[in-house]
Amino acid sequence: MPAVAVTRGRLTGLHEIVDVGRDRARGGYSRHVWQPAEIELRAWFVERAERLGLGVEHDRNGNIWAWWGAPAGDAVVVGSHLDSVPGGGEYDGPLGVVSALDAIALLQSTGFTPGRPCAVVVFAEEEGSRFGVACLGSRLMTGAIDPERAGALTDADGVRFAEAAEANGIAARHLGRDDAALGRIGLFLELHVEQGRGLIELDSPVAVASSILAHGRWRIDIAGEANHAGATRMGDRRDPMVAAARGIVAVRDAAAARGDDRATVGRIRAVPGGTNVIPSAVTTWLDARSARDDDTRDLVAEITARVGAAAAAEGCSVTVVEESWSGAVHFDPVLRDGLAARLGGIPALPTGAGHDAGILAAHVPTAMLFVRNPSGVSHSPEEHATLDDAVAGVVALEHVLRGLL
Amino acid sequence: MPAVAVTRGRLTGLHEIVDVGRDRARGGYSRHVWQPAEIELRAWFVERAERLGLGVEHDRNGNIWAWWGAPAGDAVVVGSHLDSVPGGGEYDGPLGVVSALDAIALLQSTGFTPGRPCAVVVFAEEEGSRFGVACLGSRLMTGAIDPERAGALTDADGVRFAEAAEANGIAARHLGRDDAALGRIGLFLELHVEQGRGLIELDSPVAVASSILAHGRWRIDIAGEANHAGATRMGDRRDPMVAAARGIVAVRDAAAARGDDRATVGRIRAVPGGTNVIPSAVTTWLDARSARDDDTRDLVAEITARVGAAAAAEGCSVTVVEESWSGAVHFDPVLRDGLAARLGGIPALPTGAGHDAGILAAHVPTAMLFVRNPSGVSHSPEEHATLDDAVAGVVALEHVLRGLL
Repeated sequence: MPAVAVTRGRLTGLHEIVDVGRDRARGGYSRHVWQPAEIELRAWFVERAERLGLGVEHDRNGNIWAWWGAPAGDAVVVGSHLDSVPGGGEYDGPLGVVSALDAIALLQSTGFTPGRPCAVVVFAEEEGSRFGVACLGSRLMTGAIDPERAGALTDADGVRFAEAAEANGIAARHLGRDDAALGRIGLFLELHVEQGRGLIELDSPVAVASSILAHGRWRIDIAGEANHAGATRMGDRRDPMVAAARGIVAVRDAAAARGDDRATVGRIRAVPGGTNVIPSAVTTWLDARSARDDDTRDLVAEITARVGAAAAAEGCSVTVVEESWSGAVHFDPVLRDGLAARLGGIPALPTGAGHDAGILAAHVPTAMLFVRNPSGVSHSPEEHATLDDAVAGVVALEHVLRGLL
Repeated sequence: MPAVAVTRGRLTGLHEIVDVGRDRARGGYSRHVWQPAEIELRAWFVERAERLGLGVEHDRNGNIWAWWGAPAGDAVVVGSHLDSVPGGGEYDGPLGVVSALDAIALLQSTGFTPGRPCAVVVFAEEEGSRFGVACLGSRLMTGAIDPERAGALTDADGVRFAEAAEANGIAARHLGRDDAALGRIGLFLELHVEQGRGLIELDSPVAVASSILAHGRWRIDIAGEANHAGATRMGDRRDPMVAAARGIVAVRDAAAARGDDRATVGRIRAVPGGTNVIPSAVTTWLDARSARDDDTRDLVAEITARVGAAAAAEGCSVTVVEESWSGAVHFDPVLRDGLAARLGGIPALPTGAGHDAGILAAHVPTAMLFVRNPSGVSHSPEEHATLDDAVAGVVALEHVLRGLL
């Protein structure tokens, strides 16, 4: 077996980008779509793919494709994303992209000639950290989001997705379902660092994915009355911060009471945000997940009711807006079992994390490989993969591709 | 009585600055010390004072003085501030500055010659909205804050107060107690828009202040563990957002249970702040007030204990840092009653809001005049004073100055 390229304890590809988008304030990385760090990663990907002799294409929705051989139908497509959450880890996204390129390099180094088209894809805005909707590039390509709605999404500075796209060479009027790009995919594979403790507990470096929880994001706007923090008696207040706080506790309690459901508020904004000012409005963002679509809807309905009651008790009003929705995914069982068998009977694992693979699964046979994360932690600077396990992931992907191509 | 200058329903001075520092996102005004809007207001003040023939001095701590006649001891000093909270109202601060200049203009128009030095002062960073400590200019001048500590305060972008001072012509090494400036003040008067409903209930346009609640600001840092919002089971979390939320509810409940105490969280920050990320840390800022110093300390101790218990229950840790403290103020009763009598027996009112007058009261005879606020709301775009009441305030101040000078 030829060696995987390694530099200073990392896959060489990860080492090449180790300083791109470091977040000094939060720790870890902040690489948001079409902001300077992510643009630098895109350029790095193009250059690295071209070094392997791959032909690079930019599609209508901000995704990048690197083709081994001529683009054609029934292709085996492997990929992930390069963007991150704010203060995210080094592996979530880039590990899948680097592993795909390294697996092709391994195949090339043995003189392997693919009998089927093959491409590496980088999807745009997988995390939704800039425009609020996760997997935006794959959703647009598959028609899972209305392009008008996607174009109108705004970032924290009020920049619209359509504007950011135009500034980066994407014609906003051509955003949306891309049957040509989708029609060429015969099968999609995504390798990803695991985002929980499953592989630690199973004592295995690699697994195949079985399913993804149903999940979505909801923006909860609570409106009260701004007033002076010192001059306003407690009984005269309509304080949306207190209502939001009661709501956050309800979010946690509702999920905890429902077995393995998950619900999180990780982002909050108070307006105007002064220490000596009762806010006029507080916005929280809810991330809620459950194994079944109906259960997730039920969870969100319960949370909405409890937040509404908390707000009413404080004299505040609430609006809840669904920002994104992803139904539960069960990956193609034939492909899943075939991959697991080819890799020596590796285990299958469910995940609570969304992925572009979850969007693609509604359209083409799709599978995922997870690489063990010894911290069990993700969306954090603590996220990790040992070099041994990362190499095992590349080798697994190479082995799978050798069988599929 | 000569007319007070009025333009389009406002005191002319307020009309001149009506578009400076408007906050399109929050509504109202954001005029933070040494940011462009506040710098523009400083230049406007200097120009307007010079139009009245006043002599302008900049002191060592960022405060501006406009002298009617030669600076000298035993002066009657009138003033307030020009900075605002984020998204604040039009009157909090500027009404006092404009009214002081207008009162001098009224006196000048009648040929009045002061028998005693007189100055209008603009204090820096009264709101503490940029560097976190309210009344920073008057605290520095009176030695109520250590200048090393003040210089090291940072704004949201990490700019230190000392750097901002230097960039605006203030030598950071000369920050601190200014006996020369303080020693010239024989008596200090601050006119201010009322920040509650006292004058509405009393049906009076103007009152004198009786007291200010003891108050302070505490930063509460809660540390947990960042992780993936989808992949992390509820029972495996150390979520500082849930701890902060329980803390915010405890803040409100503790104050509400103690009669007329007030406690508020108006500002919150989650790190990293992603929708699909359990935060690693959440910071809230507590504003707490009570009639007596000891009661305020008790309130904060109770809140600290309750937040600590909430954090421990979530597997999080807490640190609480006092950012500022102002003991209860009882204004000079002789001056207060003298002013009330001279103004026809106007009422005396306590306030929950801090003011530079509260800082000065520990050093020189000090009084405040409040002007009715028909909304009863402050630190909000809703804050208001009718033109009739604003003119009544100027006339009252002129009448008081005529007696004192």
